[in-house]
Amino acid sequence: MQKLYGLVEAGGTKFNLGVARSKDEVMDVTRIPTTTPPETIAAMIDWFGMRSAEFGAFTAIGVASFGPLQLDRTASDWGYITNTPKPGWANTDLAGPLIRAFGCDVAVDTDVNGAALAEYHWGAGAGGRNVVYLTVGTGIGGGAIVNGEILHGRSHPEMGHMFVAPHPQDTDFSGICPAHGTCLEGLASGPAIIKRWGMSLSESPPDHGGRQIIAYYLAQAVCNLQSILEPDRIIMGGGVMESDGLIEILREQAVKMGGGYFVSDAAAIIQPPMLESKAGLLGALALAERLTRSAN
Amino acid sequence: MQKLYGLVEAGGTKFNLGVARSKDEVMDVTRIPTTTPPETIAAMIDWFGMRSAEFGAFTAIGVASFGPLQLDRTASDWGYITNTPKPGWANTDLAGPLIRAFGCDVAVDTDVNGAALAEYHWGAGAGGRNVVYLTVGTGIGGGAIVNGEILHGRSHPEMGHMFVAPHPQDTDFSGICPAHGTCLEGLASGPAIIKRWGMSLSESPPDHGGRQIIAYYLAQAVCNLQSILEPDRIIMGGGVMESDGLIEILREQAVKMGGGYFVSDAAAIIQPPMLESKAGLLGALALAERLTRSAN
Repeated sequence: MQKLYGLVEAGGTKFNLGVARSKDEVMDVTRIPTTTPPETIAAMIDWFGMRSAEFGAFTAIGVASFGPLQLDRTASDWGYITNTPKPGWANTDLAGPLIRAFGCDVAVDTDVNGAALAEYHWGAGAGGRNVVYLTVGTGIGGGAIVNGEILHGRSHPEMGHMFVAPHPQDTDFSGICPAHGTCLEGLASGPAIIKRWGMSLSESPPDHGGRQIIAYYLAQAVCNLQSILEPDRIIMGGGVMESDGLIEILREQAVKMGGGYFVSDAAAIIQPPMLESKAGLLGALALAERLTRSAN
Repeated sequence: MQKLYGLVEAGGTKFNLGVARSKDEVMDVTRIPTTTPPETIAAMIDWFGMRSAEFGAFTAIGVASFGPLQLDRTASDWGYITNTPKPGWANTDLAGPLIRAFGCDVAVDTDVNGAALAEYHWGAGAGGRNVVYLTVGTGIGGGAIVNGEILHGRSHPEMGHMFVAPHPQDTDFSGICPAHGTCLEGLASGPAIIKRWGMSLSESPPDHGGRQIIAYYLAQAVCNLQSILEPDRIIMGGGVMESDGLIEILREQAVKMGGGYFVSDAAAIIQPPMLESKAGLLGALALAERLTRSAN
């Protein structure tokens, strides 16, 4: 029987939905706004119902979502968005309504783990063993593939919340992370940049010192990830990384900071994403396909 | 046939050797000084040869060694100590002489990965999924078990070399790491403590501020490990951790610093080792047993 996968990229402002038989055979996609959970989930179920009427039963549905998520399969709230600050969305069951409506297996993971998995299979991480995907935007999030498996511990990683040393010219800034102040996200996310300099790095002139400061933090994150995971690739996505020249400065600083200590060359392992806007739905597809494989 | 394992804990000042059928059936152990590679390795081969004459052929030999090591099985220098600063020991083949002498499989990994594996099977990490072992002594090293497997990327982890933020009362100290200055090892290892305060934490009075400062760095390491691996246990070994009260201060600071963000309670996951001085040889045993299992 031909496989059919339902794909959900659950984001804070929109849900991207898709139906595909494989990476190269995507039947349909749509986008619905993220409003309230009952409304958004009902719209998602409706759309999948119509697609299923047209194309057949789903083999599996993959959900790559904003978090935090409960990913422990033995927990009663597995597949829920848990304590998100997004109004109305705390304790929202994403997996349950899909399982009840379509009777198929559902895979749920974070958007960044989905993106890491998609880049690992089909993008900038292909051929790697340990691959990290780090997104630097409104927040900083990271996912990783270790020995072919998505890295999970008690929960999914929260790589944006690691601690790093302040840049010598940035010691006055108290950071914007409500929990940690000056963790990586508190120092180097998009809102932290705006808060300091009143504009994004993209809007700032090329010689604006902000690029050096932000690269200094991201380079420490790269070194810290090397010190623990020694990955083959650290794929740097998100809006902040689109700033002209930032990735080059980041490579330079990460090499210098590493001091030749790590086996991999930071300049080579730091890569931009290849899948870009497709990473979300392809992540959902990779999650769904993986679920099917592991069930066989 | 009864299994027989050769065990090597290769350290900078001594090699501990053992012969065992299982964790609970250790036939013999000895200790030889670490002098030059030819001398030390010949003494090791001699001792194992005599034990083999007595007990039979080795099923496998496990080596838990100081590093850095080449652990890529496809590399021509697999099983070598690579660029260690220890005089005379750079590019030393540990595995080859054992394989040639005894014709059995040899497993090689870092001493900290061995200790992590032993604690995971038989000690403070038992029952965990992701378990980290961090040793704070002359250097700072870390190993981890992730989903039942030893964590390796391009190489073994070098967790001592992650970057952390300086303590507000410690901003003058430039660190002692030759490669990174103020990385974790540069700030919080035994020699870094001596360099600052002229004595170890154990020698310092209970109200000496050093404990708070060192705990501040180790707490960041704990948080950074949580942000990436979300482990069930972070086992803190090594001479520095034996300082009275340090583990309690570390727990306190790690909980406070984490800000309730990580799923696990840092106070619960930070644990002292259970195997203590046995972790080295038991690590070698766990490595050897694992090799046998994976070959079947």
